Parts: sequence; C-alpha cells; structure tokens
Amino acid sequence: MQAYDDFLSRVQDIHRYSSLQGHLGWDQEVLMPSGGGESRGEILAWLAGKRHEHLTAPELGVLLTELESQELDADQGANVREMRRAYDQAVKLPKEFVESFAKVRSEALVAWQEARAASDFSMFKDTLESLIGMTRTKINYLGISSTPYDVLLDEYEVGMTVADYDPLFAGLKERLVPLLQSITEAQKNMEEPILPETLRFPTSGQERFCEEISIRMGFDFSAGRMDASTHPFSAGLWPGDTRFTTRFDEQDPFSCLYAVMHETGHALYEQGLEHSHRYTPRGAAVSLGVHESQSRFWENQVGRTAAFWDVALPLFYNEFPDAPEWDSNTMNQIANRVEKGFIRVEADEVTYNLHVMIRYEIEKQLFNGELTVEELPNAWNTMFSEWFGIEVPEDRLGCLQDIHWSMGAFGYFPTYTLGNLYAAQLLDAMKDALGDIDSIISSGDWGPMLDWLRPRIHERGSQVTPSQLIEDATGKAPTPEPFLDYVEKKYRTLYGLND
Amino acid sequence: MQAYDDFLSRVQDIHRYSSLQGHLGWDQEVLMPSGGGESRGEILAWLAGKRHEHLTAPELGVLLTELESQELDADQGANVREMRRAYDQAVKLPKEFVESFAKVRSEALVAWQEARAASDFSMFKDTLESLIGMTRTKINYLGISSTPYDVLLDEYEVGMTVADYDPLFAGLKERLVPLLQSITEAQKNMEEPILPETLRFPTSGQERFCEEISIRMGFDFSAGRMDASTHPFSAGLWPGDTRFTTRFDEQDPFSCLYAVMHETGHALYEQGLEHSHRYTPRGAAVSLGVHESQSRFWENQVGRTAAFWDVALPLFYNEFPDAPEWDSNTMNQIANRVEKGFIRVEADEVTYNLHVMIRYEIEKQLFNGELTVEELPNAWNTMFSEWFGIEVPEDRLGCLQDIHWSMGAFGYFPTYTLGNLYAAQLLDAMKDALGDIDSIISSGDWGPMLDWLRPRIHERGSQVTPSQLIEDATGKAPTPEPFLDYVEKKYRTLYGLND
Repeated sequence: MQAYDDFLSRVQDIHRYSSLQGHLGWDQEVLMPSGGGESRGEILAWLAGKRHEHLTAPELGVLLTELESQELDADQGANVREMRRAYDQAVKLPKEFVESFAKVRSEALVAWQEARAASDFSMFKDTLESLIGMTRTKINYLGISSTPYDVLLDEYEVGMTVADYDPLFAGLKERLVPLLQSITEAQKNMEEPILPETLRFPTSGQERFCEEISIRMGFDFSAGRMDASTHPFSAGLWPGDTRFTTRFDEQDPFSCLYAVMHETGHALYEQGLEHSHRYTPRGAAVSLGVHESQSRFWENQVGRTAAFWDVALPLFYNEFPDAPEWDSNTMNQIANRVEKGFIRVEADEVTYNLHVMIRYEIEKQLFNGELTVEELPNAWNTMFSEWFGIEVPEDRLGCLQDIHWSMGAFGYFPTYTLGNLYAAQLLDAMKDALGDIDSIISSGDWGPMLDWLRPRIHERGSQVTPSQLIEDATGKAPTPEPFLDYVEKKYRTLYGLND
Repeated sequence: MQAYDDFLSRVQDIHRYSSLQGHLGWDQEVLMPSGGGESRGEILAWLAGKRHEHLTAPELGVLLTELESQELDADQGANVREMRRAYDQAVKLPKEFVESFAKVRSEALVAWQEARAASDFSMFKDTLESLIGMTRTKINYLGISSTPYDVLLDEYEVGMTVADYDPLFAGLKERLVPLLQSITEAQKNMEEPILPETLRFPTSGQERFCEEISIRMGFDFSAGRMDASTHPFSAGLWPGDTRFTTRFDEQDPFSCLYAVMHETGHALYEQGLEHSHRYTPRGAAVSLGVHESQSRFWENQVGRTAAFWDVALPLFYNEFPDAPEWDSNTMNQIANRVEKGFIRVEADEVTYNLHVMIRYEIEKQLFNGELTVEELPNAWNTMFSEWFGIEVPEDRLGCLQDIHWSMGAFGYFPTYTLGNLYAAQLLDAMKDALGDIDSIISSGDWGPMLDWLRPRIHERGSQVTPSQLIEDATGKAPTPEPFLDYVEKKYRTLYGLND
C-alpha cells in the first residue's frame, strides 16, 4: 500500500530524530565534558526543530487522513492512531517555540545541577520561572479542554487528568497514612537491622555484583551497557543498543543494587520491543506508567523479597567476603526499612507514593492554582512537614532533589505511582499464571517471569492504550487495590502488625 | 546579506549532519555493544543520505552561483570556495549510492575486525572487493580527469595527484633507505636499551601519566575526554567537546604515551578552531595532511626527544616507582629505536614513510593497474620483503593491520607522509621564531609552541588551501627537505653515524 509506505517512511524519520536526541541526551548525562554544554544545547534544539518540522509536515496530515479511511491491520492502525495524536498536538506548536524550549531545557539542566550542589533554590528560581512560563505558553498553544495541568498530565499518560488522579491519590493516602503510622509505632519497640556505618563496599565489587544480578534478570549485555551517572536512568537508544546507568556509594551497596534492578527493569522493556517495528510507535514503549511498572516490578516485587536474597546473598559474599554474616531475612529487612526520609528515589514502598503526591500537589497548584515559584520551597517544606512530620533542612533534600523540572517535565511524577499500581496488578496476574512467585525467585531461574512479561507487555509496544494493555495482561482494568493489598500485606508481615 | 545568510544556514545544517555522523562513529568505536552494529550501520547510512540531500539541494547551487559574483570577505570567500567543491562533487553522486556505501562501510568494519582477529585475509576479501567495487563506481560518478587513483587522492588532500606523490616518495626513498641501511649496520655493533620483558606498567598509572602529559601539551579536559579503544583516534565532535582515545599495554608504556601525544596533537587542532565559525569549512580543519602535521609534531618533534624526557621522567617515576633508573637519554633511545617492524603505527620516523609507500603502491596498482584483491596479500608481502628484508608471517601483521580500507578510505595513507613533512617544516619555522626548541621543551612550559601554532594553523581553519597555509606559516612552499634534514640529523646523532 503506497500511502502506508510513504507514511511509514515519514514516521521512521521522525523517530530517528528522537533517537538522535536520546543518544545525545544519554551522552550529556554520562560522558560529556562541561565545555560541551553550550553546543550540546544548540544541537539538541536543532534536532528538536528538525523532528518538529517532519512531524508537522502537511504531507503527513494528508496521509493520516487518507489512511484513517482505509482498512489497516492492528499494527498499522496503532501507528496511525498514535501519529494522529502526535501530529494534532505538534501542529499547534511553532517550530521556533519547540527549538527554544529545547535549548532552555538543556541550559536549565546545568542551572539545576549547580543550584542543587549549592543547595540553594534561589540559584534555580529564574530558570524555573522561564521553564514554567514556556510550559504555560505551550499549554495555551495546545489549548485547554479542562484544567491547564490536565494538558500536561495527558502528555505523560494519555487520558489521565486531575479528575482521575485526585481520587486515586486520596484513596492511596487513606490507606497508606494509617499503615505508615502503625509501622512508626512498631518501630519504637524494635531494633531494625541496619548497615554498620564503618563498613565499606568497594565500587568494583558492587559493579560485578550488580552486573550479575542484571544478567540474571535477563539483560543482554551484548545489546546494551551499564554506566555510572549522578542520576541513574535507562535509555533504549537504538535497536540492539539499550543502556542504563547506576551510581556507587561505598557505604551503601543497596543504593546501587536497587538502582540497577530498577533500571534493568526499564531496559528489559526496551530490549523486548519488536525490532521489526523499529522507529514507529508500534515498536516503542506505550507509556511512562507502563515503563515504570517494569522497573518497579523487578526492583520491588522481585528484588525486595527474602526469596531474592536467597539467590543474591552468595553472589554478594563473593564480592564482599568481609561483610557480617547476614541471612536473607535480615537483608530483606534492611532493604525494606520504612523511613520518613527526604529523598523520593530512596523511599520505601509505603512512603514512595506520598513523595509523588507532594510533587503532584505542587505542580497542580503551580499550573492550576495560585502558587508562585517564589513560594515553592516554602509550600514544599510545609506540605512535607504536615505529611511526614519532619522538617526539610535544606533545598537539596527538598524541592531541588529531582531532575524533572529542569527538563521541563511537569506532569511526569504521577506516572511513577501508576507504575507502582500496574506492577502490583501484574504480580497478581503472574501469580495466577505461574503459581507462587517467591518460589520462582528463590529458584534463581527468573526466566519464567520475563517470559510472561515479554508477549504481554514488551512485545506489544504501543499496539493498544496503556490501560487496555494492563487489562489485556491482567484481565482487569487498572485499579489501585492490588497495590494496596500487596503493600499492606508485605509491610504488616515485615513489621509484625495485626490485621 | 540575505543570500550569504541563507547559504550559511544551509552549510551549518550540512555540517551538523556530519557532526552527528562523527559522534555516532566515535561511540561505535569506543562504547557501542556489538548488538548495536546493525542499527548503527542503518542510522549512519541515513545520516549520510540526509547530509547528501542537503549538500545537493538545488537551492544551494543557486546560492553558490549568486555568491560567487559578489564581494565577500576572506572568511565568506573560504566557505563559498570549499562548499563549491563539495557541492560539485556531491551532485555527481546519487543519494542511494551514498547511503548504501555508508552502510557497507559500517558493516565492513565488523568484517575487518573479525578477519584481523583471526589473521585471515580470506575472511575480509569479499567485503574488500565490494568496497573497491563501490569506490570504482564512485570514481566513475565523479569523473576521471587523469588517473582513477588521482580522484581518490584529491579527496583527502586537495590538489595532490600521483604525479605529485610519485616523485615525492621516490625522493624520500632515495635518502631514507641508505639511512636505514647505515642504522642497521650500526645496530650490529651496539646494544640498544630496551624495556625488560618482565616489567609491568599498570593501566591506571599509565592513564594518570599520559593525562598529565596531555594537560601539559595544552589539552583542555573541561572541553574534552580521553577514552580507550582498540585503535587510538581523535575526533573534534562538537564545539567545546573534543575527544581522543588511546590503548593500554601493560608491558609497554610507550605505546600509550605516544598514542596520547599523537592524538592530543590532533585534538589541540580541533580545540583551537574558531567556535564563531562552527559548522562551516572556515571553522574546520583544512586537510588530513595538516591535521597529521599537528599529531606528528607533538608525538615526534616534541615527544621523542631527550628534552621531553627531562620533563616526563619525574612524572613517569611518580606512577612507576619500581621501574629501573633510566635517564632522559636512555628513555629517548628506547623511544626512537629503529626497527624493521611490521606495524606502521609502531614504526620509527625512518621506516614510517616506507610503510606509507607500500600502501600507496598497493592502492595505486589496485585502482590504476592490474592488481586484484585476490593478489593483494601476496603483493604486500613481496613488496615488504623487498623493502624491509623481512618476511610477513601473517596477514594480521601485513595487509590486515590498518582500519582504513574497511572504512572505504582509499587514498588516505599518503596524507600521513605529508603530515611528517609539514611537521618538520613547521619545526624549522618555529625555531626561527622562538629559538632553541629543545630548551623550550625541557623547560616544561610548552605554551609558547602551542601559542605559535594557534594563529598560524589552528585558528585559520580552512581559510586558505593546505599548501598556502603551510607557506604562510613557514615562509616556504611545502617541501620534503626539512623532514629529510631533520630525520637524518636526528638519527645520525642517535646512532653515532658519520655524515
């Protein structure tokens, strides 16, 4: 079919520009010398402009209209559906705006890094204000159907709005806050195992240990890499070349381990996409929420269990023969310790979603309400103190901790919570299909879990919408119940709480 | 001027595609997992096609014609001159040909690596045949004015032909072969210092030592990187981001050191280009020959002297305290030992150009004469045995040693010899301006040498032709005399030969 072939070739070109952006973004985080910052910002803006130019080509619009009236197979239909959405959005944005937004984002990364290092919000304030200003402009270009923040939420998980998230978060809060209170009570009367402060775990040992875990999860190192960066992330750069990063803290091997399990979860999704559909939506991950379900599944449902430590402990002692003799349960307790900490990425599964909710509330107020950038740190600290009962001592541990805003990614955080919910729902369905998951984990052969995820999540790419994908995989529409049941059961057991 | 601005914007786009190719090429050599090979070949071909599309745009042709009749300043004139040449060549090549040639080259790299590892030319033969076939097709597209090989030579150093190289190489051979004979004679009656075979120089120490040397040469690590790769190379990827690579051999710290000095020489050229002329010929290196003059100047004229070792020895012993107590002269003798070896990149300054000539003769016969790919290894080995008096034991040490052919780079090698000649001529001119160079080197402050090169070579980019650039810098048209005088004087002294 000539029209579809023409369409496909245009779609692939658009995605090639995205992949080039992705590769240079990866390089910027992992390798680039500081002197390259200015020209990197320039070339990223140029690529964003080129991508936009191709995405908004009138010929693409004509082809879309033509194809929408034709008989297409499921894969073709998915590509037309997804490109229609992208096209309709993109044509509302002027190319100059797309370019200058990309440039400002690239520069903002540097400003944020410096402000965070100095733990001084005032150093980031002006940049954040321009980012928010440009985002407001973007919202206006795109057109507001309900609230301004909804426009942003929809960008990161299609179809999700404040009307969906507000009750969802309220429901989570309703059960997580009492759970947290019970745990805090219980902690007063127990001594939890922790890592002795004087112990050191050399980086090279952590690297080998974590690589072994990643391989066991199914990551193919002949088609990918693991590197170090300040902020662990994963990037499915090219077909056959998926990369993720971690970080090393010689006092805390758990930090690296769970970063690796998390990022490998993302990376397995990327490695599992269909290469035959490369450079098209059909061959790409369907959403951030589903992506996060893959990382959280491996990090938490697999990695934060005693069964995991049955397998991991011998590998751990291979690298750290001088570490104290811990058993699987002790390791698991250390790995799941609930703590009212300041940092989201270090949070346990009980408090994690509360961290997300703070960002969601702040963003909602910034875009829908009255909150100004000036007031942001104070609003953050007040909310944190109310919810967690502890005072944020400095911006580094508060509103400066996350990279997202510097990337202009407003509306992104709630997808983390969706990922947690999807992961728990997938675990339930996997259990129905494969039987006891702990037994599979402790057997050390984790292939059956990956094999279950591959055809149900990874290989389907963007064939259907995120919620349809979860429903197809689990037999139920997405719901928070499995997560709440899972987290309550897990932590009640860990902390010996009564039902 | 509107026409020039339009032209400039098009020129910059063309160069942005080249830079993207360069970045992905760097990544392919340094980081890419093997599984990424196929898609890397595909995207490199796509970029080559895009670049070609922009370079051959009829609008560019119209602008060139318009600008050629206008008053332009020197920088603008240089850009128009260089782009005219590139445009006139490119329009002769179909886009499909450019894309498929790029793809074949990327695949050939893998075939060559495997053949070289197995030391088996037959594994590379078919690939080489297609590369040569495609190169012949390219020559036909471009059109032959003199000999087919001239078309290739001109690509790597504008204006150079067989009629220039044949007498040049004959002249070099005439004086280098007797010099080599005298040295070989002298070697029979002396014991040359060598590295004890049992000594080991840990990689981490080599890395620190070489980084210090590179910094001292003037390399700005805040605007660049040093990495490891099988084949050391340098790449001026982006304004403010120049990268080079080296390799490590724990038995031989000289291999890493001189690779670093060589590649830093290239990298200093890239770092010295004018950022204000980024993405234009005016802001780019003028030729491979001039590029090589920069690498060879630092590697040989600076690095392979006793004066250099006066400075380097204390740094060396910082990292390798257990090495025997050598003095500067001994180190210099080890670094300059003349050896009839098989490997070009390890060759001393006397035999180096003979290595280049073998490749030149082979290529000339392949494209102008009767030599077939089938006969290549035999022709190589016969010629090597005649010129060096030693038998090539395996292809790895013979015709498979260099990466160039796998990159489709035929006609490239002679620029290495040009680099050697230019470097010696620059040394003479620098001596006239700065006085005794050995004193500058042994002072440890090498800034005056870089400061001399910056405005005369680096900052001028492609303002004038390569030979004009050398003439402007040295007061003389390029000639082999300074090199021959330099190499004869240096090695006669080292080996105690009479004049």
